[in-house]
Amino acid sequence: METLKIIKIGGNIINDEPALNTFLGKFAALEGPKILVHGGGKLATSLAQQMNVKVNIKEGRRITDAATLDIITMTYAGKINKQIVASLQAHQCNAIGFSGADGNTIVATKRPVKDVDYGFVGDIQSVHTETLDILIQNKITPIFCAITHDNRGQLLNTNADTMGSALAIAFSKSYQVSLYYCFEKSGVLKSVDDENSLIKNMSPQTYKTLIDQGIITDGMIPKLDNCFYALTHNVHNVCIGLPEMVFDATIPHTLLHNS
Amino acid sequence: METLKIIKIGGNIINDEPALNTFLGKFAALEGPKILVHGGGKLATSLAQQMNVKVNIKEGRRITDAATLDIITMTYAGKINKQIVASLQAHQCNAIGFSGADGNTIVATKRPVKDVDYGFVGDIQSVHTETLDILIQNKITPIFCAITHDNRGQLLNTNADTMGSALAIAFSKSYQVSLYYCFEKSGVLKSVDDENSLIKNMSPQTYKTLIDQGIITDGMIPKLDNCFYALTHNVHNVCIGLPEMVFDATIPHTLLHNS
Repeated sequence: METLKIIKIGGNIINDEPALNTFLGKFAALEGPKILVHGGGKLATSLAQQMNVKVNIKEGRRITDAATLDIITMTYAGKINKQIVASLQAHQCNAIGFSGADGNTIVATKRPVKDVDYGFVGDIQSVHTETLDILIQNKITPIFCAITHDNRGQLLNTNADTMGSALAIAFSKSYQVSLYYCFEKSGVLKSVDDENSLIKNMSPQTYKTLIDQGIITDGMIPKLDNCFYALTHNVHNVCIGLPEMVFDATIPHTLLHNS
Repeated sequence: METLKIIKIGGNIINDEPALNTFLGKFAALEGPKILVHGGGKLATSLAQQMNVKVNIKEGRRITDAATLDIITMTYAGKINKQIVASLQAHQCNAIGFSGADGNTIVATKRPVKDVDYGFVGDIQSVHTETLDILIQNKITPIFCAITHDNRGQLLNTNADTMGSALAIAFSKSYQVSLYYCFEKSGVLKSVDDENSLIKNMSPQTYKTLIDQGIITDGMIPKLDNCFYALTHNVHNVCIGLPEMVFDATIPHTLLHNS
């Protein structure tokens, strides 16, 4: 099977213009089929402040009322996505921006209200790869912002990590998919401030042990659950680390594997 | 040759949610290859006011400084474009949102500074239909917002009428293109407030006479020049009128023709 790289970048790169430009130059030069998924960074929060829309984040998730959804749609699908696409075009990478509504690629349902009403937040129900596959086969690179739709006309705010994982699982039917999560650390660290404590390899067994020992906690658990879920659903491998790891495999990072 | 319909809608529909929904429902049901081009309406101006960015419009053109370009990108490519795409998906029309940067479809150059510095405003240089053609052949409908790029990383604000015309000319190589300009009147009127004064047919000769007689003036001249330019560049026909004319040819409108 042909290889497909799905790369998720987060706020640390989006918020740093020179770092983003460097990343996009290298991403453009990366050979073979590829998809980029980007988060939103600080821009949505600063626009909300300018517009006097209250920012309400609960357990790392943004409570998305109608005004917040507008802000997210404007910043993620508008400014950030189009600037990334224009930069990639300047680097001779033929990119097209996507939300999950475009090409009906990612359908989600509004999260049911339980203890918390997250508002217009979507949990992914299905991924449709046909249109993306046509583009990829024509050497066009899809660039996803973290917005989906419910196929009934409603846009929904969706976690970018989960979008990367859902795309990776869906494409594993026809490609050997490598999924990369880029963030500001070299990977999963035993001690959060010590880059020398990098865990280079992680199996489900190692993961369980590290949770039992209290070494992996809090915010990393949903992220890693997501990664192992992808691995048990035919994604070939999952890497977590600095953006540079995507372009140079010798750069230390965390490689998750199934056994 | 196969027929392709290119339909431009402006602020009067964009600003009127029920009218937009009705239009999109009918547009979704329209058979055969089609492309929608939309303007921005009042949303950019109201966002600019909320963000305390000065709105500066000269001879109907928006002076586009960096802050204004951000606002335009957020509203046109973000909120409006994605809401249109999500609505069309709900109506079973498989749409994908585009700016000229996406798929490198429309390349423009920043307008040179002469008497007026329009800022980040782009004049169209070239249209690349390959990617759009692949999508259209796969029954996917491109939805364009009025933003282009210079292929060097810069997004540019571009007139939606001109985008419609440039797309129509480029596609006339491989399709019989009908170009529709929808606005709030039945078409070109001899007397601006009298719908009964509709000019149903307009040849270049009629057009010249109406200008000489002072019947067509001001803002309509660049619009109509644009239309006749398209007709002399192989566009099959150009219609101006109410949105309903697209779906029902018996609804009175202005048909421009070459002879």
